[in-house]
Amino acid sequence: MKIGLLGHGVVGRGVREIIDAGATWEVRELEVKRILVKDEIEMVDPRCTLDFEEILNDPEIEIVAECMGGLEPAHTFARKALEKGKYVVTSNKKMLATYCEDLFKTAVANGVTVHYEASCGGGIPWMAALDRIRRVDDIESFRGIFNGTTNYILERMKREGTDFADMLKEAQNLGYAERDPSDDIDGHDVKYKVALSVVKAFDRLVDINDITTFGIRTIRKADLEYCAANGYTCKLIGTGSDYGDYVSACVIPMFLKADDVFSNIPLNFNVIESQSKTLGAASFVGQGAGSLPTAHAVVQNIIDIWKNQDPEINDKFVRPVDNQVHKGVFYIRTAKQAAFTPLIDRHVSETAFVTKKISLVEAAAAAAAADDETLFIAEVAQ
Amino acid sequence: MKIGLLGHGVVGRGVREIIDAGATWEVRELEVKRILVKDEIEMVDPRCTLDFEEILNDPEIEIVAECMGGLEPAHTFARKALEKGKYVVTSNKKMLATYCEDLFKTAVANGVTVHYEASCGGGIPWMAALDRIRRVDDIESFRGIFNGTTNYILERMKREGTDFADMLKEAQNLGYAERDPSDDIDGHDVKYKVALSVVKAFDRLVDINDITTFGIRTIRKADLEYCAANGYTCKLIGTGSDYGDYVSACVIPMFLKADDVFSNIPLNFNVIESQSKTLGAASFVGQGAGSLPTAHAVVQNIIDIWKNQDPEINDKFVRPVDNQVHKGVFYIRTAKQAAFTPLIDRHVSETAFVTKKISLVEAAAAAAAADDETLFIAEVAQ
Repeated sequence: MKIGLLGHGVVGRGVREIIDAGATWEVRELEVKRILVKDEIEMVDPRCTLDFEEILNDPEIEIVAECMGGLEPAHTFARKALEKGKYVVTSNKKMLATYCEDLFKTAVANGVTVHYEASCGGGIPWMAALDRIRRVDDIESFRGIFNGTTNYILERMKREGTDFADMLKEAQNLGYAERDPSDDIDGHDVKYKVALSVVKAFDRLVDINDITTFGIRTIRKADLEYCAANGYTCKLIGTGSDYGDYVSACVIPMFLKADDVFSNIPLNFNVIESQSKTLGAASFVGQGAGSLPTAHAVVQNIIDIWKNQDPEINDKFVRPVDNQVHKGVFYIRTAKQAAFTPLIDRHVSETAFVTKKISLVEAAAAAAAADDETLFIAEVAQ
Repeated sequence: MKIGLLGHGVVGRGVREIIDAGATWEVRELEVKRILVKDEIEMVDPRCTLDFEEILNDPEIEIVAECMGGLEPAHTFARKALEKGKYVVTSNKKMLATYCEDLFKTAVANGVTVHYEASCGGGIPWMAALDRIRRVDDIESFRGIFNGTTNYILERMKREGTDFADMLKEAQNLGYAERDPSDDIDGHDVKYKVALSVVKAFDRLVDINDITTFGIRTIRKADLEYCAANGYTCKLIGTGSDYGDYVSACVIPMFLKADDVFSNIPLNFNVIESQSKTLGAASFVGQGAGSLPTAHAVVQNIIDIWKNQDPEINDKFVRPVDNQVHKGVFYIRTAKQAAFTPLIDRHVSETAFVTKKISLVEAAAAAAAADDETLFIAEVAQ
């Protein structure tokens, strides 16, 4: 089966290397025929081209593997490939989460499918596990520590009592965090992964802008001190639950109980857990994706297509996100408390308080009304 | 696809319930046609029979799901089913690990396959993950906390400083441990799981009697105190590594470093980790199998057969176990130290010492020579 590879950075190169090496008989059935690169200097292989049309118009190429990153031209190329009846495999969570309705509907209209195991979980075969569980069970909900960078920062802050800014700088120096860390620390990376997990777990398409998202940019030592003093561990959690007509989905720091398996996930590990009727809570733990594990997941998806083991046959249904059903108790620290007055259960310091049991919608509305860029919010496990 | 179910205890009943309920379209393609039960009092369903021949000689039944437990008649029934050209799915790790060479070779000779996801990991889709990883990578090794009961006992002893006998009794009262706890605390349960993981990961068949096995029956408070004082956590670990011509495999308590993800697996959870070239270390965490997760795994295997997604097509190769290659440092407490004299690096108490770096074979030989039923041995992570 012949593949057109878009992008030859760390992931694209890994895909080419795994397929060229051909360690198993399945992999030896695959061939990277063309590789789209950005400029002349990247033309290191006779298969390289600067012209996407050469891949698009090659009828031998049945699969396009998109490993470019970024929204454009990745989205346009993926769309064109689907319109030509080519299967698309992507490692690009931001692009696919942003354009999920467009791309999944284009795929169905053209009798092909979009595959995205590498876009979420990387080192964890999370997407494959969901496919498998769904053969027997309906998935009811999932939750996860989807982001290794923030888990690393929170864990180090907890162990060493350091400040957020210091730990972020160190994570950047170690190469765990990007120079523009917003996708990680503001929760967007987790939001994309939640959106794609919603697709895989529930066959629902949601608008990522509707996923309530809080990050850890504003966390302070004092917040973690309160958290630890009360026996909790703070983790940035993404969750999704299916209610048929709508989906509940959010990204929020959580104060978890000590005996929660999520509390004990060290440093830059991720963990994701599905909840379904007969399997119960099934957890998947792994290291944040390096380039080879991500490339590994891309190749797995290509083998899925080649073997016609394709669970992505269902039409997806667009559903609204509604977090009214998400009730909880929240820890909030803000210099502007007025908007929260009716929601406060008790103060834990001059600027921090714990709410009554309220919905995430109420908490988010009050946080928006407060308009305080130093505000930190976390849900407290009950 | 019609199924003959052997056994109607917790697992067998779960299999029948999942298939009868038919939550997904895949499951609705399956039908439990006959159920073998032990005596009249179990004849609660018109499909029940006391006569295995009724299942064996029914040409409509293509799959036999063995959920009886015990060595016999489970082994004989599985063998007869294979000889009749029926696929066998089993949740019975002890039976399959004991007769693996016989049953896998019988399956190959009759053009069918044996499936055993439920026999190992239960709540963790470990076997399915190995199948998937192997499409792209050769598995080099695995290690795991395969037994929830011993993990529970060790974790509680660590947290509360209690004695082994007290914690075993409590685990028995809570239903975590059997009244005859030998399979758990002497490491046999882990040994069976290691043997079947060796089959799945490497396509090797080994004699379970050759797997070096040490349990936790003889552990004392003082051992865990030394362990904790030096920053380690004690877990009962099963491992396997493939060397082509032979396999290294063992079950042994290990003193793990604090930053090892295995050190932080709480209470009755299991964790298993595979090591392969492109995926690296991939960990799978889950709760010890309850009856429904185990039944879920049996149904997953039945769907694998029905979908003809059958990776069990390889002939398996009988290989010796050789642990000469397994080098390590061992903590040993024994009243009979003579056999160990040339191996000791330093004493840590009057009766306990740490060895030089030696092979597991040397350590096991000295332990056998010491012939001390109070001896406790653990490998110390380096």
